[in-house]
Amino acid sequence: MHIVVLTGGIGGARFLTGVRAYAAAAGDEVTAVVNVGDDVIMHGLRICPDLDSVMYTLGGGADPERGWGRVGETWTIKEELAGYGAEPSWFGLGDKDIATHLVRTNMLNAGYPLSAVTEALCARWQPGVRLLPATDDRLETHVVVDAPADGEGDGGGQRAIHFQEWWVRHRGAIPTHRFVFVGAEAAKPAAGVLDALAGADVVLVAPSNPVVSIAPILAVPGLREALTTGRAPVIGVSPIIGDAPVRGMADRCLSVLGVPVSAAGVGALYGARATGGILDGWLVDTTDAQTSVPELTVRAAPLWMTDETATVAMVRAALELA
Amino acid sequence: MHIVVLTGGIGGARFLTGVRAYAAAAGDEVTAVVNVGDDVIMHGLRICPDLDSVMYTLGGGADPERGWGRVGETWTIKEELAGYGAEPSWFGLGDKDIATHLVRTNMLNAGYPLSAVTEALCARWQPGVRLLPATDDRLETHVVVDAPADGEGDGGGQRAIHFQEWWVRHRGAIPTHRFVFVGAEAAKPAAGVLDALAGADVVLVAPSNPVVSIAPILAVPGLREALTTGRAPVIGVSPIIGDAPVRGMADRCLSVLGVPVSAAGVGALYGARATGGILDGWLVDTTDAQTSVPELTVRAAPLWMTDETATVAMVRAALELA
Repeated sequence: MHIVVLTGGIGGARFLTGVRAYAAAAGDEVTAVVNVGDDVIMHGLRICPDLDSVMYTLGGGADPERGWGRVGETWTIKEELAGYGAEPSWFGLGDKDIATHLVRTNMLNAGYPLSAVTEALCARWQPGVRLLPATDDRLETHVVVDAPADGEGDGGGQRAIHFQEWWVRHRGAIPTHRFVFVGAEAAKPAAGVLDALAGADVVLVAPSNPVVSIAPILAVPGLREALTTGRAPVIGVSPIIGDAPVRGMADRCLSVLGVPVSAAGVGALYGARATGGILDGWLVDTTDAQTSVPELTVRAAPLWMTDETATVAMVRAALELA
Repeated sequence: MHIVVLTGGIGGARFLTGVRAYAAAAGDEVTAVVNVGDDVIMHGLRICPDLDSVMYTLGGGADPERGWGRVGETWTIKEELAGYGAEPSWFGLGDKDIATHLVRTNMLNAGYPLSAVTEALCARWQPGVRLLPATDDRLETHVVVDAPADGEGDGGGQRAIHFQEWWVRHRGAIPTHRFVFVGAEAAKPAAGVLDALAGADVVLVAPSNPVVSIAPILAVPGLREALTTGRAPVIGVSPIIGDAPVRGMADRCLSVLGVPVSAAGVGALYGARATGGILDGWLVDTTDAQTSVPELTVRAAPLWMTDETATVAMVRAALELA
């Protein structure tokens, strides 16, 4: 069986450890289609937070406590950049992590597409899952926020900032109007993505942030259509348990869209395939067992990814729903 | 008084500490015109070994024991790059040093000329001396060597490799035919260089490698002419004491050119201005007091830069010769 997973970074990476364990036992093949909307160029380096979170986590190199970046990380370069007054100073790049970005940036500048670069990086990390960026083209999530009173804006009192600036610098705590996927119209699915979806027996939507992790993947023209017209059932796993995200900032992002922070809210945001959405099934936590979404088969199972066993059980429940 | 120094990296940097101390006491202004022939792009980073050696040394950030790079350097990124199998693996970049290259590369990619980038980096290091690259254009020293028997060459049994590969990787210990300054024909003196030479009261040629540190500076069209037609006396300081270089590999480079490894040999290589060369005076070590070069005023003084006092005395001797 070929399992394709649409995923963002940290939460999706943890989910993928369960998918990988399940697939290893069952002899299944796994492809992860990873969000690139968080990608950003800082200090001339192309940084792919979600691809790296997945790669480091599955490759055993992630920092389990901080949740992002490399275990045993050091921060020499960050201090040095501050010594030069180099901006931005609010985005902390670790030394080990920078090596990844150097290799990636160098390969991209040499003309390799991001999918080929990712494959090359994975030759070291051996994630046990095929990692594909959603697109090889530049697609960046920007956030339209109130412009500061002292200028910098479009005259209408708003301006767009990169998602990383919105989240890392401002912790999402500024008046926010909407998310824009810059470059999405012209983006094409990365090499291998449409083939993976065409060959999929099941597609899982990881419990990642629906607004800034999954939506930018679906914003790539042709990718959403490949899902909705494909033969494989598409099963989503709720990133919300009760009235809060399992981790991260989905609540903040959902409220910008006016979507209820609940399993029902996110289920309806994705929507049933029969109603023009993408899902055939929606897996929610047992505490949300009463969730109902129009035209969508909803099942409940424990969704806390406390350890690999729990995560594998959750993956099994999602696949049974398929 | 305005003193201009033509210089390479480590030896020249030490010489400049003496020039700076002398100038501080005398109220003089110092401009260093620094070789860029050693510059190289590695892992996508623009590395300027001589500019950085001078900047770090004068800024108090150089490693005094290793002789190059930063004091307290760490090597995390080097190990990580090796983990990815990134080439070249024979060129060791320290973490602190890489931060400098990141800032530089980012500014160059944004369109700033190297001279402006150098000024920006020096805002942190405060070298107390104005540092100018010889040129803002790309000028690289390549070395024509025997091609290996198994291919890679021009068919004539020779190939050109970057100076860094010749020196760092091969320690200069391969059959070598000549040095080529790639890009020199099209290079222009960097912003500020011709003005500095025009306003100089004296020009000192540091005891740097004449073949791969000073010659690439003189290879910039217009720069040599500015020296030879200028009003300022040009005084060279011998990098050879007895029959060996004070430090580095001048002996290896001179022998490739068939030039005797002696104060007389290097003095004749530079040549007296009256005979089409660049020098008006040639300062040699006391052990080489018998040195004679056609048409050139030769003086002897102790040239071992054992400490700043000795170096200042040496600078004073050079200036007296002017």
